[in-house]
Amino acid sequence: MRNFTFFEQAFRDHRSQLKLVLFCTTVSGGGLLAYGEAVAASEPEQKKKKVVVLGTGWAGTTFLRNLNNPRYEVHVVSPRNYFAFTPLLPSVTCGTVEARSIVEPVRNIFRKKKVNAYFNEAECVKIDAANKKIYCRSNINNNLNVKDEFVVDYDYLVIAVGANVNTFNTPGVVENCHFLKEVEDAQRIRRTVIDCFERASLPSISEEERKRILHFAIVGGGPTGVEFAASLHDFVNEDLVKLYPKAKDLVKITLLEAGDHILSMFDKRITAFAEDKFRRDGIDVKTGSMVVKVSDKEISTKEMKNGGEITSIPYGMAVWSTGIGTRPFIRDFMQQIGQINRRAVATDEWLRVEGTDNVYALGDCATINQRKVMEDIAAIFKKADADNSGTLTVKELQEVLHDICERYPQVELYLKSKQMNNVADLLKESKGDVKKESIELHIEELKTALSNVDSQMKFLPATAQVASQQGTYLAKCFDRMEECEINPEGPLRFRGEGRHRFKPFRYKHLGQFAPLGGEQAAAQLPGDWVSIGHSTQWLWYSIYASKQVSWRTRALVVTDWTRRFLFGRDSSQI
Amino acid sequence: MRNFTFFEQAFRDHRSQLKLVLFCTTVSGGGLLAYGEAVAASEPEQKKKKVVVLGTGWAGTTFLRNLNNPRYEVHVVSPRNYFAFTPLLPSVTCGTVEARSIVEPVRNIFRKKKVNAYFNEAECVKIDAANKKIYCRSNINNNLNVKDEFVVDYDYLVIAVGANVNTFNTPGVVENCHFLKEVEDAQRIRRTVIDCFERASLPSISEEERKRILHFAIVGGGPTGVEFAASLHDFVNEDLVKLYPKAKDLVKITLLEAGDHILSMFDKRITAFAEDKFRRDGIDVKTGSMVVKVSDKEISTKEMKNGGEITSIPYGMAVWSTGIGTRPFIRDFMQQIGQINRRAVATDEWLRVEGTDNVYALGDCATINQRKVMEDIAAIFKKADADNSGTLTVKELQEVLHDICERYPQVELYLKSKQMNNVADLLKESKGDVKKESIELHIEELKTALSNVDSQMKFLPATAQVASQQGTYLAKCFDRMEECEINPEGPLRFRGEGRHRFKPFRYKHLGQFAPLGGEQAAAQLPGDWVSIGHSTQWLWYSIYASKQVSWRTRALVVTDWTRRFLFGRDSSQI
Repeated sequence: MRNFTFFEQAFRDHRSQLKLVLFCTTVSGGGLLAYGEAVAASEPEQKKKKVVVLGTGWAGTTFLRNLNNPRYEVHVVSPRNYFAFTPLLPSVTCGTVEARSIVEPVRNIFRKKKVNAYFNEAECVKIDAANKKIYCRSNINNNLNVKDEFVVDYDYLVIAVGANVNTFNTPGVVENCHFLKEVEDAQRIRRTVIDCFERASLPSISEEERKRILHFAIVGGGPTGVEFAASLHDFVNEDLVKLYPKAKDLVKITLLEAGDHILSMFDKRITAFAEDKFRRDGIDVKTGSMVVKVSDKEISTKEMKNGGEITSIPYGMAVWSTGIGTRPFIRDFMQQIGQINRRAVATDEWLRVEGTDNVYALGDCATINQRKVMEDIAAIFKKADADNSGTLTVKELQEVLHDICERYPQVELYLKSKQMNNVADLLKESKGDVKKESIELHIEELKTALSNVDSQMKFLPATAQVASQQGTYLAKCFDRMEECEINPEGPLRFRGEGRHRFKPFRYKHLGQFAPLGGEQAAAQLPGDWVSIGHSTQWLWYSIYASKQVSWRTRALVVTDWTRRFLFGRDSSQI
Repeated sequence: MRNFTFFEQAFRDHRSQLKLVLFCTTVSGGGLLAYGEAVAASEPEQKKKKVVVLGTGWAGTTFLRNLNNPRYEVHVVSPRNYFAFTPLLPSVTCGTVEARSIVEPVRNIFRKKKVNAYFNEAECVKIDAANKKIYCRSNINNNLNVKDEFVVDYDYLVIAVGANVNTFNTPGVVENCHFLKEVEDAQRIRRTVIDCFERASLPSISEEERKRILHFAIVGGGPTGVEFAASLHDFVNEDLVKLYPKAKDLVKITLLEAGDHILSMFDKRITAFAEDKFRRDGIDVKTGSMVVKVSDKEISTKEMKNGGEITSIPYGMAVWSTGIGTRPFIRDFMQQIGQINRRAVATDEWLRVEGTDNVYALGDCATINQRKVMEDIAAIFKKADADNSGTLTVKELQEVLHDICERYPQVELYLKSKQMNNVADLLKESKGDVKKESIELHIEELKTALSNVDSQMKFLPATAQVASQQGTYLAKCFDRMEECEINPEGPLRFRGEGRHRFKPFRYKHLGQFAPLGGEQAAAQLPGDWVSIGHSTQWLWYSIYASKQVSWRTRALVVTDWTRRFLFGRDSSQI
């Protein structure tokens, strides 16, 4: 297709010459072929760079949506031909929102873009970074029992395959627990909840069995587990008890958390409110309770508060919503490039995978391996010491401080945390109260001044927000790759010459919600601003509606919410 | 629960006597027990009759919705805890309507009724009509690999389990074809269509394979097959070609019909219009093509028009939408009650299963075994001959004609078809033009006059309309069972004494639609009124919206249609 378009173009541009050539061909023979090759050779920069994107989650899709440079040709490979708005997955488990309302076909996302994009529904099974190839296998059902396999080569590879569930090798989890990572998981949970209610209604079931079947256990007190527990409680109490009146007194929801509190990543006020609300709602919150084994009918936990005593809880349905793990082919790839014993692919601050060329990784499958100031202190000192005097003046340091802060974000965070405005304040700490301009620093003194900054380094959480910001960042880098090659806009290269092409990736936390059921939610917004209650739930509705990837999903999600208000949630077994 | 309420009632009515009894008991001992038994014996009619309904399709659900007499206690047993609006299944296959929009939980349907109703999600595996018991097995998934089994006894049994697919023992159909009877089937077809498009987009697939994968074969040119073909054509041409531009020229839809025409049960004008429209749309309509074998890649057909030649067609997805068969436990039941070699349970005109007591069957699993006039002619003559003269006067015949027409609907149909107004016209045919009152008929002459009426007997089609009318009819009979026992309202019993309790079931055909795609539909309305085109499609929309079982599904279906107009159909692989 590409070659044909190119040839068409050549034909249009050189129509008059072509006529001549055609004439010549009739005379000399073979001339057209030679001419064609000459044209192709004279325009090699026309060839598009092939970007292969693995995955259609938050990172991959945001990258795709933001990439606008027609210089690239994009091949997307993913086992799912759609993007799913995963923050609404807990709503799907109880039918507050339909599964189809939160998905958008990937092909629809790139259909109207200037960038040529192709999609293949397949799983990447191996990355061959040395030869710039990936090996793929399609899992599409066909009645032939044959797997389609193929190889795709790339100029740039963007790995955004997300993570899978980490069971921490707890026995029985894979066999008996539900997960909540994919749309199919949410659909399966929804069916299983109804299954439990239907089974508990059968006349052949004993009262004790009924109680067991209607006991829903959720492992993990993070935002997902908490939201699922809250949704399930609402589903049961607002809708299911009307249809299964006998079940009302038998249903029990238990939330198991190994730590001391649920929602531990949130402000203490939110944690306290959530724990209190759950207690009032009758949701049993068991903190300090670590799951050690799951059998077909019982969950065994180690009770930290009771000196590690092992207890067993009978359950009907268990949802495992804690821990993220590495996909097997990513683990292989990490071994190949010498990244061993890590949970995720290590990248630099520009999302480039360490130890590779032109391979990028973002989202849940990657972590940014931040550079420590202390490791580069000699290089920083040397670069800042413009006059090679062996000492640094405040002025000299001031001049590179912006670059230092950009290259090592922990420096800026440190200054902020200590409420310092400039470098003089920083030096004041180590050199005492002196007049600014007169200070001269030796390398050891700079080391002392900066000795604590690396403590500010933080791993980014595995959230949709991080993945999506990384996708946008990387797309913008790709769009301006050529420009920035010539006019680099990044900070100084302290260990090399010149400047970095781009500014490094910086995560901007926009806040986080925790819906708590009963039309109440908690939100932790930037600046440690906390909001809890009904109005926060409405804020949640409006933000989640606005964040949808298309007008279609936006309309569907809002319709689903309206329908739930009017008619309740459906409990049909489909 | 029931016994308790009864006792409460007894206690309230006889409070004063009870005091006396309590006094006596203290004197004589054991008196209370004796008294209690006496009370129970004196009010046996207080005990509710237990009606067990098998199935939650059109027949079962309509019966449930219309039953209003609190004298009954209803137990519903079905493997599906919802009612599905099956005429919209072809729309679900292509995402014009979502699966969840056409289903309504059964518990929701009977929740607000006066009649006590219970539901069990299980399959009936055996009917023991002799002991008035049914044996059930639950298919609910649990991670224990145990099937829950239980027995339910009944006073009345209503069998409304529908039919399953009939493959006519064609090899390979069960293994390789999709069916279109259940909601799950429609969902599976939707996923498979997208699967085919995704597979055809893989780089490892040859051009020939692509063509095969994108060939959709539909077996059966009845209303379902035709509607599915039309929906699929719209889905492909309105939505999928935008996302899979390369597939456009490769997609092919073939409709295979063994008969000479598609939609053969409709008026010839509709058939001709449909065949013509499909030809213009590029849907390949192959009539006279009988499928004899389906392999994993090819369908073998016997071409009737080419002298029975066997040809093979490669296909990517095949949908089998022809033939209805008997469920295995129904076949067992039929053998038990001596109904052998039949497709469906035979009932009389009151939907009572022949050869049983208090067992009713309706919908696709049953057929009404209409009584032939010729079999009962002696009884009819005897009953009509009020004065036992051995001959019938026109007046005598006229007096029972209404009952004859009610008991034997074929007589009325025959009179209508011959455009006769009364019995004199009927006799005219056999006795020539005579003055009415003077005619005297011998039995042989009556036989001659009625000799052709039985040719008007028709089997009812296996449609939602028939099932739903039967459900309503049976519920009304149940509601007035006691009343009609005393004041029967049915026709004369020709072979017995008195009258039948109820009028026999009469099917009233309200017309039938055949959506043909491209916002066009055909309708055959009562009185052989035919309507074709865009306005008919709008009539279809309004009738199908109005026929929904609940406001919830109505709102959802209309929302789905609106969404389709605005955003097209979704092609996410879920």
